[in-house]
Amino acid sequence: MMEESDRPEHPETFLSSQPEKNNLGAVTVGVDFPVCVVLPAGGSGERTGLQTPKQFCLLLGRPLISYTIQAFERVSWICSIVVVVAQENMDLMTDIVGRFQHTKVRVVAGGCTRHRSICNGVMALSEEKEGETQENKVVIIHDAVRPFVEEDFLYQITMAAREHGASGAIRPLVSTVIATTSEGFLDHSLERAKYRASEMPQAFKYNIIHRAYQKCTEADFDFGTECLHLVLRYCATNAKLIEGPPTLWKVTYKRDLAAAESVVKGELRSILFSKFREGLIWCTRVVLPDTLTQSACVITDGCSHASRLADSLHEAFCSLETQIKLNIIPDVTGDNVRYLLKTWNFIQFSMNVSDLAKVETTFAAVERTGQTLLHPVVVILVHVSTPDRWAIEPTTFAELALAAKRRNILLYGVHVQQSKDAERWARSLSKVAELTSALIRERSEALVGQLLQA
Amino acid sequence: MMEESDRPEHPETFLSSQPEKNNLGAVTVGVDFPVCVVLPAGGSGERTGLQTPKQFCLLLGRPLISYTIQAFERVSWICSIVVVVAQENMDLMTDIVGRFQHTKVRVVAGGCTRHRSICNGVMALSEEKEGETQENKVVIIHDAVRPFVEEDFLYQITMAAREHGASGAIRPLVSTVIATTSEGFLDHSLERAKYRASEMPQAFKYNIIHRAYQKCTEADFDFGTECLHLVLRYCATNAKLIEGPPTLWKVTYKRDLAAAESVVKGELRSILFSKFREGLIWCTRVVLPDTLTQSACVITDGCSHASRLADSLHEAFCSLETQIKLNIIPDVTGDNVRYLLKTWNFIQFSMNVSDLAKVETTFAAVERTGQTLLHPVVVILVHVSTPDRWAIEPTTFAELALAAKRRNILLYGVHVQQSKDAERWARSLSKVAELTSALIRERSEALVGQLLQA
Repeated sequence: MMEESDRPEHPETFLSSQPEKNNLGAVTVGVDFPVCVVLPAGGSGERTGLQTPKQFCLLLGRPLISYTIQAFERVSWICSIVVVVAQENMDLMTDIVGRFQHTKVRVVAGGCTRHRSICNGVMALSEEKEGETQENKVVIIHDAVRPFVEEDFLYQITMAAREHGASGAIRPLVSTVIATTSEGFLDHSLERAKYRASEMPQAFKYNIIHRAYQKCTEADFDFGTECLHLVLRYCATNAKLIEGPPTLWKVTYKRDLAAAESVVKGELRSILFSKFREGLIWCTRVVLPDTLTQSACVITDGCSHASRLADSLHEAFCSLETQIKLNIIPDVTGDNVRYLLKTWNFIQFSMNVSDLAKVETTFAAVERTGQTLLHPVVVILVHVSTPDRWAIEPTTFAELALAAKRRNILLYGVHVQQSKDAERWARSLSKVAELTSALIRERSEALVGQLLQA
Repeated sequence: MMEESDRPEHPETFLSSQPEKNNLGAVTVGVDFPVCVVLPAGGSGERTGLQTPKQFCLLLGRPLISYTIQAFERVSWICSIVVVVAQENMDLMTDIVGRFQHTKVRVVAGGCTRHRSICNGVMALSEEKEGETQENKVVIIHDAVRPFVEEDFLYQITMAAREHGASGAIRPLVSTVIATTSEGFLDHSLERAKYRASEMPQAFKYNIIHRAYQKCTEADFDFGTECLHLVLRYCATNAKLIEGPPTLWKVTYKRDLAAAESVVKGELRSILFSKFREGLIWCTRVVLPDTLTQSACVITDGCSHASRLADSLHEAFCSLETQIKLNIIPDVTGDNVRYLLKTWNFIQFSMNVSDLAKVETTFAAVERTGQTLLHPVVVILVHVSTPDRWAIEPTTFAELALAAKRRNILLYGVHVQQSKDAERWARSLSKVAELTSALIRERSEALVGQLLQA
């Protein structure tokens, strides 16, 4: 959810040309040297028990690796991302880059071990922009299957690498680590406080990781596990270790895909929003509705009846504590396009037959933003009827929904009967809120085109 | 999904009085000594970021700890389970035991550290059944937040403890473990092959763990982390370590609750089904539809039209590859009650108004099994109409569903229009299959009482 203070009382007040508001204090940072990323994505996915390597598993219709790439692409001070995949996945990866419109990505072929793949990625970076100095460059190495890395942590890792030559994320140990005898008995347990789990991302001055890979042996290439260890051995660079947040977690097992989906669908995450300014790169920390179910946009189409309904629905949402923030806007033109970029969910009212056409306007506007390329967008038509008034024809609605689904828009209908009895009407509105919030949360493909009863 | 070979071609052939079929080969085991369990459940849930300690968080309406208890209760050779909770949660835990009808459980108050809590649990076991010899007794210690432990692994751990005095589960390290300098730099990384993560469950000869806790110091009570370490130090008992399956995983973060829910809802798990025989305890390994969405039961109410519909629906399910196995039975009386115990999902057809009453019969039968105590049960009424035939009144249906929900039954309706056009009818049936399988998978509370259109 966005911070309360960021919610406009009146939509118009929001639509200024002011820079993005800063809710968490002005954490402005400067990165005045080139930063690149290497994403090894050659894994086979043994541990998930799935045939598809886990970096290519779909989360809400999009491969996991596309989420990870997006996490880096939205960081303005990261200039390029090299994704290293197995030769047989080169075409697949190139397709993903095209389909989800990734712009900073280059795909290169990996080697037969993790180190050989990372090395290929690092070498590919040296070919970039001839004449450019490598002196100041920092390279971040990350796992393709840790999609939830955040800009503030990338910044810490990057600055530490710049200062110390190398840096890496660590986390407390979850389990006690024990040494075993060769017969499978307990030898001793390690003192937990002295040890940490080494995680990703790690970052290096480009020259240092480059030199380490040039010097290292075939055995390092085949059996080594830690880049940090290589730079320690071959470049005498002692990595600075930084404790990372739990969001660095790695998608390892099949159940982790469900966990990742729950994160994408609904959990609060803060991300960093950034912009260029006068050559230097500045970024401002804000809380954005980054997850799919954090907010919904109610489009009233400038109709006063719909505006009143929207206000009542807003109240019903609040009293249900749905955690979904509603923004009410009159239309999807002009400055209001900003709202389209901030949500994946739309609610519209219909009182008569011509209102069905307005849904088409919403579809077109949403499509223009490119949002549907990344995730399915939910549009809910709340149909308010009186006994004597036009009702939506289920078949027409189902057909409209079927066509929308091909455009990655999930259209659902909720039918509510207008009532003069205040108590009954309040109950109906509460049910509308319950149904719409469930549709937004559950994003069911099977239920597309259904007209539910509130 | 159950094995294909376990599916009756004709329902009658299944309803024999033969013992449970054995699909995975005859893994029969004997445990002829007493085995008890201590479940420390005093954690505060800091890492989940939730107010409720994670062992009490609800998964589909049931606290996590109830799942863990169930994992032990269904093992016939485990005779008692001591759950250790913080003093302030004694009442809550007692309520849970009553509400979910746990029979082997005793609740005792814990201490201020994990070791003190486990010690309280171990001491509570010594008070059991006076005069009973403790000589042969084995005690399993497990985490309340690892609900997916399986009988075959418990058996391995128990037998190893019986032989060696102590045993514990281990898993390969997921991350490289590194030692850090006091300034936060890399000191060295451990050779991964020599170390393992120590997990739960662990098992001990009762006398050994009892003695270890009598001898250990205040410092051990306050800062020790490993029971294995205590028995090594105070009883010179070197624990046998056994590599456990990934299902031993611990619910640690909020996202893990989503992962756990996905396991309960849909993943294939094999559990052990056991029975007593002549004083000795035998158990037979079978694959049971243990998860909520593995199977559904179609009740035809002895109607030939419904039987034909059921067969067509079965075909539609197969061609959709829903992974939900359909069992078709005529009614829920007599031997067919066995089916009720094997599924959490029911599909019924309605062709006329009197069919609505049959749903009530199903509700009552399901309730008698006690299934609704453990999980919400899904009942889907597929209403088949012709233009001239009776249609379900939405309000009546919604009211029926509302009443059912109070009994932990989720009632949904799917309306399909009969058609003489074969192609169209096939499309409709395919849509019925799509909707019913989505309703079963998604188990949405908000959609209860809706009449969807196929």
